[in-house]
Order: sequence, then C-alpha cells, then structure tokens
Amino acid sequence: MNNLRSSSERELGFGKVANSERIMNSDGTTNIIRKGISNFNPINVYHDLVTISWVRFLMIIFITYLIVNTLFALIYLWIGVNQLSGVVPGSGLHNFWEAFFFSSQSITTVGYGRVAPVSKLANAVAAFESLMGLMAFALATGLLYGRFSRPTAAILYSENCVVAPYMENSGLMFRIANARKNQLIEVEASVILSIKSMINGKEQRSFHNLELELKRINFLALSWTIVHPIAEGSPILGLTKRDLEEGKAEILILIKAIDDTYATQIYSRSSYGFDQILWGVTFNSVIRINAEGKTEIDLDKLNDHTAV
Amino acid sequence: MNNLRSSSERELGFGKVANSERIMNSDGTTNIIRKGISNFNPINVYHDLVTISWVRFLMIIFITYLIVNTLFALIYLWIGVNQLSGVVPGSGLHNFWEAFFFSSQSITTVGYGRVAPVSKLANAVAAFESLMGLMAFALATGLLYGRFSRPTAAILYSENCVVAPYMENSGLMFRIANARKNQLIEVEASVILSIKSMINGKEQRSFHNLELELKRINFLALSWTIVHPIAEGSPILGLTKRDLEEGKAEILILIKAIDDTYATQIYSRSSYGFDQILWGVTFNSVIRINAEGKTEIDLDKLNDHTAV
Amino acid sequence: MNNLRSSSERELGFGKVANSERIMNSDGTTNIIRKGISNFNPINVYHDLVTISWVRFLMIIFITYLIVNTLFALIYLWIGVNQLSGVVPGSGLHNFWEAFFFSSQSITTVGYGRVAPVSKLANAVAAFESLMGLMAFALATGLLYGRFSRPTAAILYSENCVVAPYMENSGLMFRIANARKNQLIEVEASVILSIKSMINGKEQRSFHNLELELKRINFLALSWTIVHPIAEGSPILGLTKRDLEEGKAEILILIKAIDDTYATQIYSRSSYGFDQILWGVTFNSVIRINAEGKTEIDLDKLNDHTAV
Amino acid sequence: MNNLRSSSERELGFGKVANSERIMNSDGTTNIIRKGISNFNPINVYHDLVTISWVRFLMIIFITYLIVNTLFALIYLWIGVNQLSGVVPGSGLHNFWEAFFFSSQSITTVGYGRVAPVSKLANAVAAFESLMGLMAFALATGLLYGRFSRPTAAILYSENCVVAPYMENSGLMFRIANARKNQLIEVEASVILSIKSMINGKEQRSFHNLELELKRINFLALSWTIVHPIAEGSPILGLTKRDLEEGKAEILILIKAIDDTYATQIYSRSSYGFDQILWGVTFNSVIRINAEGKTEIDLDKLNDHTAV
Repeated sequence: MNNLRSSSERELGFGKVANSERIMNSDGTTNIIRKGISNFNPINVYHDLVTISWVRFLMIIFITYLIVNTLFALIYLWIGVNQLSGVVPGSGLHNFWEAFFFSSQSITTVGYGRVAPVSKLANAVAAFESLMGLMAFALATGLLYGRFSRPTAAILYSENCVVAPYMENSGLMFRIANARKNQLIEVEASVILSIKSMINGKEQRSFHNLELELKRINFLALSWTIVHPIAEGSPILGLTKRDLEEGKAEILILIKAIDDTYATQIYSRSSYGFDQILWGVTFNSVIRINAEGKTEIDLDKLNDHTAV
Repeated sequence: MNNLRSSSERELGFGKVANSERIMNSDGTTNIIRKGISNFNPINVYHDLVTISWVRFLMIIFITYLIVNTLFALIYLWIGVNQLSGVVPGSGLHNFWEAFFFSSQSITTVGYGRVAPVSKLANAVAAFESLMGLMAFALATGLLYGRFSRPTAAILYSENCVVAPYMENSGLMFRIANARKNQLIEVEASVILSIKSMINGKEQRSFHNLELELKRINFLALSWTIVHPIAEGSPILGLTKRDLEEGKAEILILIKAIDDTYATQIYSRSSYGFDQILWGVTFNSVIRINAEGKTEIDLDKLNDHTAV
Repeated sequence: MNNLRSSSERELGFGKVANSERIMNSDGTTNIIRKGISNFNPINVYHDLVTISWVRFLMIIFITYLIVNTLFALIYLWIGVNQLSGVVPGSGLHNFWEAFFFSSQSITTVGYGRVAPVSKLANAVAAFESLMGLMAFALATGLLYGRFSRPTAAILYSENCVVAPYMENSGLMFRIANARKNQLIEVEASVILSIKSMINGKEQRSFHNLELELKRINFLALSWTIVHPIAEGSPILGLTKRDLEEGKAEILILIKAIDDTYATQIYSRSSYGFDQILWGVTFNSVIRINAEGKTEIDLDKLNDHTAV
Repeated sequence: MNNLRSSSERELGFGKVANSERIMNSDGTTNIIRKGISNFNPINVYHDLVTISWVRFLMIIFITYLIVNTLFALIYLWIGVNQLSGVVPGSGLHNFWEAFFFSSQSITTVGYGRVAPVSKLANAVAAFESLMGLMAFALATGLLYGRFSRPTAAILYSENCVVAPYMENSGLMFRIANARKNQLIEVEASVILSIKSMINGKEQRSFHNLELELKRINFLALSWTIVHPIAEGSPILGLTKRDLEEGKAEILILIKAIDDTYATQIYSRSSYGFDQILWGVTFNSVIRINAEGKTEIDLDKLNDHTAV
C-alpha cells in the first residue's frame, strides 16, 4: 500500500478499526454508537424533530398536545372547577373533561369564553398556559420551516452498482437522479473503496479513492451514470468478485450539489456493500423521446439492467 | 469535434439526445418530463407552494380555507348544532352556516364565544381543529418567509441576442440588468452554444463553451453587455444565420451572483433560441446623465437596438 | 493607462460615464437611478421593509393596522352594526368605533366576544378578516426574522482616510472596527481608486486597484488599519492633493467577512471622497491595557488623529 | 523571528499588545472590552437573546411577560376597571389582578371575553396591546428559530493538550469530537501558538502557526486527535515546560466544518493555556468494538490519558 492510499485512509475520519458491520448504510448514516451524548439536550431534540418522518412528527405533536392538556386539566381540577365560570360541576369525569377542554382553549389561544377563569389562581394558571402555548407554537413554526427548508438532496441511487464493459477495459458504475422537482446544479461526486486486509497479521480496513471518468456535471437534469474506469492505477484492477467479498468491500459515495430553490450547498451520501455489486451487467437507458418530441426520464427504471 | 468540446458537452448534464424542442426555456426551466416523481411528497408540495405565482398562492390558501371549514362544518352538523351553545337550530342551510362560521372561528383561534362547543364530542373536534389551525398557520408563516427570502435573482435579459461588430470582427452579445432593488455583486456569466449535427449518420446535440470578453464584474450597478467575440477559436466563426437555424442552435446562459441583502449566492439561467438572434444590429445605450447630473438607467429599454 | 488598469475598470461594473456625483456614498449605496423598476413588486416591497429603519418599520405596521381596521369598520358599518351582537347602535361615530374595535379584535384573533358577528354577511367578513390577520401576522414574523437574521456587517469606518508616513515613503490609510457584539472572522479588504481624467478630449472615469500591505486578517477582534503603500506601482504615487480634487477622486472600499453567529458571508461597502482625505496626519491608537490588565478598544476614537 | 512568523502575527488580528490575560478563553470568546458599543441597539439585543443559555432565555421571556402585564394593568386601573365589562370593582388589589389578567388575555390573544373592554379608551389600549402581543410573539418565533437553527458546532475538546511521543520525536496533541447528533463533514483545523517575549527591551506577544500532521478530515464520525509534530521547523522545538510558562504561552485553535443537517459552514474556537499542557502523557483510545461488533465511541473519556 503506498503513501497516497494511507493518507486518503486517515483523511476519511473513520479510522482503521476492523468492525464487522458496514461503515455506512445506504441512507448515508454511519454505524457508530456515540455514548455520552445527551438525548435531552435542546439542540439534539430539535435535530431529531427536524429529521424524523412526517408521520412520527405529527404523532409527537398530537400526543404532546393530549399530555399537556391532561396535565393542565389536573391542575384546574385540583384548584377546583368551580373557579372557572360556565362550568356546572358534576361527576369527576365530567369535571375533568370541562377542565381538559378549557385547557385546550387556553393553550391554542382560541379562548371561546363559555368557560373562563374567575379566581386569581385559575387566572394565573391560564395566563401561564397561554404564554406556554404561544411559545410552543413559535417552536412548531420553526420546526415546520426547518423541516421544509432543510437543504436535503433527495438523490436517488440505483439499487445496485455494476461492473460493466467500459472503453477497452471495464468500469464500476452506478446511476443517480434527482427525486425532487428542484434543480440540482454543479453536482460533484467522490467515490471511495473501503476494504479489509491483513496488515502485519492484524485485520484492518483501508480506504482508496476511486478516480472517476467525470467528477462534476453542470446540471442533474436527467440521470448521471458515475463511472470509475477499472484501468491502470485503479485499486480494483485485478480483484475478483470473491476478493471483494472476503475483504467485505464497501463503496462509499459522497455527492455535493447546489439546490437551485434556495441556492444552498447540499450533501448526499450512500454506499454499496460487496453484495450489491453486479458483475457483467449494464444499465438500460432511462431517457426516451416521447410521442410529442419531449425528453422523458423514468425514475422507476433507475436500476434497470441487462446482462452482457 | 475535439476533446475539449466533447468534454464540455458531457459536463453539462443534458446528454446528447436530439429532441426536437429547446433544452432550456427563456425562464431557465428545462423541457424534461420526470416520471416517477410523486407530486404528493411533502417536500415537492412545499417546493411548488414556494415557487408558484402570488395570485395562485393566495388563491390556494383562500380555497383551502373554504374547503377545510366546509368539512368541519359538516362534522359539526353531523354531531348536531344543538351541541354548540349560542346556536338557535333552524333550517339545514342556516345550521350549516352557523357550523361553518364556528369552524372558521376555531381554526383562526379568534373564538368569539357567541357560539361555543358544549358537549364532549363538539369540544374534542374544536380542540383538534384549533391545533390544526395553529399548525396550518405555522406552515403558512414558513411558506411566506420562504417565498420572500428565497434568493432568486430577478435578472432581466434583453429579449434578443445580437450579432454586432466587435473589435476587428463581430461578437455575439446580449444584455442583462438587475430588476430588483437589492445589489448584485461578484456577477459571473457562462454561455454555452448547443447545436444539432449529424454524427456518424445520427442526429446528435453537441455543446460548446463560448469564451467571453469579460466573465465577471464586481457590481451589477448598471446593465452589463455580455460579449462573445466571434474570433479565432469560436465555434460560431464561419457559421451563418441559416446554419444556426438548421442546427436548431440554442444559446444557454448561466449567471451566478451574490445578493447583497442576504449575502447569498444566487443563480439565474436563460436561453436564446436561434430565432431570437438578430444579425447586424447593436444595442442602444440604456444609461444617461440626467439634468441633475445623476446617472440613470432605464430598464424598459434593455432590448432597444439599431441596425448597423 | 495600461491594460491592467483598463481591465479592472471594466470589471467593476460602473462604466466610464463621467457623472458629476460620487459613485458610491459612505453608506455603500450607489448614486444610480433605476427606472422601470416597480416599487409595488412584492419582492421589492419586502426588501424595503427589511432594510428601512426600525422607527419607520414600526410606524408602517402601526399605520397599516389603523388603516386596515378603518376599512373593515366601514364595511361593518355598511352591513349594519345591528348584525353584530353586543353593540347598542347609537350615533354614527359611536357605531364606527364599535365596528373599528370589533375589527381589531378579529384581525388580531383576540376575539373577546362581547361583540360578535351574528348575520351571515358579518360572519363572512369576520372570517375573511381573521384569515387576513393571520396571514399578515405570518408576514410580520418573517419580516422581523428577516430584519434580525440578515447578515449585515456593522463595520465602522473612520470618518477620514489619511495620507501618513509609512515605511520609507507614505501610505493611504483608514481604520475599521466591528460595531457589533458578534465576531467577524476571515476579513478581507479591497480598495479601488476612481478618478476622472481627459481621454481623447473626453472626460472619463477610470478605476485603479490599490494594492494593500495586508489584504486579510483572521479576526477583527480589535480595529484594523488598512494601508495602501504609496510606493512604486501605486497609481497615487506623485499625485498631489490638488490632483485628486481636480479628478474628483473617490476611494471605493469593499469588505468581505464571516459573521460568527450565523457563519454567513457578509459584505460591507464604503467610500471616501477626495475631501475626506487628510494629508500629513496619523491615527491615534484606540487600544489600551486598562487597570485590570484587560485589553480595551474605544470605538468612539476610531477617527482620532494627530498632525505629523 | 523571521518574516513568515511576523506576517502570521499580523494576520491574526490581535495585535502585539502584551496584556496579562489569555487572549482567547476555552469557550472561544476573546478577552477584549469594546467601549462605544451600545447594548441597546436592536441587533445587539437580538444577538444576546440568541446566544444566552436556555434557562436565562426562558427567564427573560417570563419576567418580561410579568412586567408588560403589570404596566398594562396599571393603565387599565388608571382608565378605571369599570370600563371593562365583567369586572365587579372591589379593593385596589382585586381590581389590579382583574386588570392584570385581562391584560394577559389580550396580549396572548386568548381573549376569553368574561372581561372585555367597553369604553373607547379601554378598547384602544386593548387593540394596541393585542397588536403588540402579536409582534412580540413574532419576535419570539424568530428568536426560537434563530437559537435552534444557528449553525453552532458543539465540538468537544479534550480538557488538556498533551506532549506525547510521536514518530521519532514528540508531538503536541489534543482531541476533538462532535457532541451533537448531526454529522460534521469536511472538518479543518488550524492551530496557532501565542507567546510573549522581549523584543527590543519591550514585552510583546508573537504568533506562530503550528503545522499539523493532518489539516483536514472528511468525516468527524469518531474522535480526531490533532497532532502538531515537534520537529524541524516547529517553533516549540527546544522549548521546555518552563519556557512556555514564562512566555504565558497559549495554543489557539480554529476549527471549520460543515454541518450536515443544514449544510452550513460552522466555526469553533478554543484555546489551551500553558497550564493545560501535560508533558509526557498520551491519550487512551475512546473507540472500541462492542459485543455486537459495533463501533462505539465514549465521549466522556475524551480527556483520558496515561503517563508514558
């Protein structure tokens, strides 16, 4: 292994530890457990709320709304519902629901007023609850904006990476496309091979940059087939399917682009395990000219391939 | 075709497919149909709502407001308007309107309270509606901010591109100006010629960078006439108006600048079809010193030209 | 004039027009009238509202609030205040004020309910007004955030630019400091001399880069004295105070830095007219070690200078 | 001292003043007092509110809420609580609390309506208060969003900097890790030594860049041990622990990275005083492969070290 390689290895920031799992998952997350990070740090909570799925996000908001209203309902019950005008005290459950809905009317600031606080204590709790509601809602506004404006590249990767004939030799290829309606411009790719080997009798991971036929395109208007020519200088040259399997090879991909809507730099990562590499196969075209002469790209066919 | 050209061709990201339409429209959008993109993905909906016109945006908000209130009105009718205090039940239509306006008072959180929910069920629906209203409004806040803060360059392009005398030879020229009150700084242009030709008996598009007399200016305080000298090395040298027409030539323009208000990078694209290129014509000046000695630029005259 | 100079001239983007006013004002705005820009374009209105002073901004909000409430009050009057519950119709003025305050309660969504809409028409207007209120408020939220988060460098410039002894020769110097509590890092300066001269019997402005002793500093923790050495190669070498006056010389300054709070690039511009250049004067130090051994910088003394 | 060194000194922007305190604190703030900066400038107030701790931020909001409601309560008392419907005038304190809670209901726009303004004057004050409430809340929304979306790198630094054996010689090392759940990519470090010495009989600070073994890593997935080899060319070569103490040496650290969530550039600064440098000590590993074969990093052990 030459110096160039060992330097690219260290620069990646993953170290040489030979763990048994993939370093990076297909969705770009890493397989590292970080201990000592508090989940209850406000910034980490915010980060989670911005990145979780929409279904979970809306569920969390709805459940929080129910819990907070229940807590305030209990406080109003404890103060006594007779301190709220408009409530005819009845059974415990009846009183609870009156308090619960009064709480919901205070926290959303809808405040119909059929039920309203009369005593000083009930007024103070309601005044605090309305303030809390406004702050919670300010937070939700920020979260929703954060979720939408976050510059996430929805780059689609072909499910497989193929080794296909290329020029006089062969090439390692995969295909990407933009899953969003925005334009991606100034798109750059870098591809790294991670492979285990025995160094001084100890199993270690090493990392190798894979040179690309083209590192950068102006627009990702259509799809882009990223090609690493398996030629002189390629660390894959001479390796067989079996070698990659034994070395638990992994292809790490970093994509950098500019999102046209907000003109922000975006980053996308992915990886292919050795078992996702198909040998002797080429991708089919995803682009066609339709009946009206328009160029059409079919994203559902991004992984379509034929044996050669 | 030399290597330089074929490389710039591939780097553009449009491929060589010889479709019959223009690649890029004057407003910078591309003529490509992307199948397999879901319009109902939240991010794509948000992207649409940020980029559609103001009239359509406000219409969508207003119509959504009517629809949502109608749906909730139907729910309250189904529960029974007698479960809302302050409503004197009457004809079906009368009840519908009472329920409709109660719904609007809940969703906007104005909650006058003349009509207010009494039963558990009505209260629960209203509590949910107020929460939904707050979330919808949080979303609208983000959308409005997104629409305004989006770094869109409102770059005005002259309607035509001209071939005018330049130095000893001639030059391909067009003119840009800033349609906004903000300052554009560090403005850069790149211009690409796309033309069809027969390669190995097959019609293909090729792409050629057009060298500019000046690629970058510090300020776009006035207008900027971007000039490609048709001299030694220019792919247009020797081509006639008819050649461009037969090759369905297209001039693609990419402008990059920094918007001074938010200090963000902005991008603008445009293109001229062969039919927008005027031969033997020069632009008139848009700048004059007025009576008080002030420099004045008239954006309405950006395309004014005279035959030479 | 050599080629280097004429190129820097064109790259600035101001053209050669010899107007009688300064090109750039001390606050970085330019003296150019742009005709054909609509002030009523939403983006330009937003831009104005983000950049005007706080006093004007709050005045505009308050006056708009009064006007909109007056308009809605007139609508409710026209419908008839008897369609609002809780209003005892009285004199025209009395009715107007009841309608006005009902409008304010609807648009802010406070909705006390003492006065509430009863008829379909009054309800419809109120429902529309609440929606409008929410949208206006969403807009205000965005505007306030825009005003605060806008990456504006509050760079203080010394009022004067001085020509003081420097090395064996002399230097043109001015001083900057950060007026904000944020940190400015990676601060870069470029300085351009604009001067009028007769070229082919026609008065024209030319532009010349002034080389700096130091173009970039890591932190703007203290103040920074930016120095152009008037040595071999300087376009000012040999010019007298009178030459600059006759050429209506202007020193244009562009500062680029990174604001640490939001990690955004910021830009600041300024200029000195020939009448702001002091000859044979040096700046006094603004930094001292105080009694407790702490470093202190006094921004009020940024322009303090002594004759040499 | 050679020219290279004196140039890096000037470029840092701290000047040569030999104050007795550390230039930079561990949290990256500088020990400089800036006079002439108004704390009451809106931008500085906003900057403070975005950067103070969460506890102080919420306290300020809560106390402001109490103060503003008290002020408005006094205004309503002065007008007369009999001008508010629903209030049964009583003792002074009773009236105050009724006015106070009416104010809180107006400013949060909850507006139950049990108490509502009747007279023109009370209505006008309430209309103004609701508007003010909305604006205050708009501001709070922006502040909360600003606090969360601010691209702050929560980079953990090892408490100490060590001088440990490295290659044939020794090296100055410290360790960093990411305290957040986001990914930090393209992480760059620069390290500067600041030391006092007698120059021409006057005590002055000088600044020296410390060359790093590796300046940049792609991911900060695990921890990163930043190493300055104390070899040929290092300004520390030959210096003893005592020399650093006498020169009140300080190690200044600047980290630059990209936060993956918002794809924004972030900056982190820190410093080690001479008393934080441990000699003859090496860091223990923080990474281990756990029972399930997963890579684990323990941030609590970032400063763990052993004597050599």
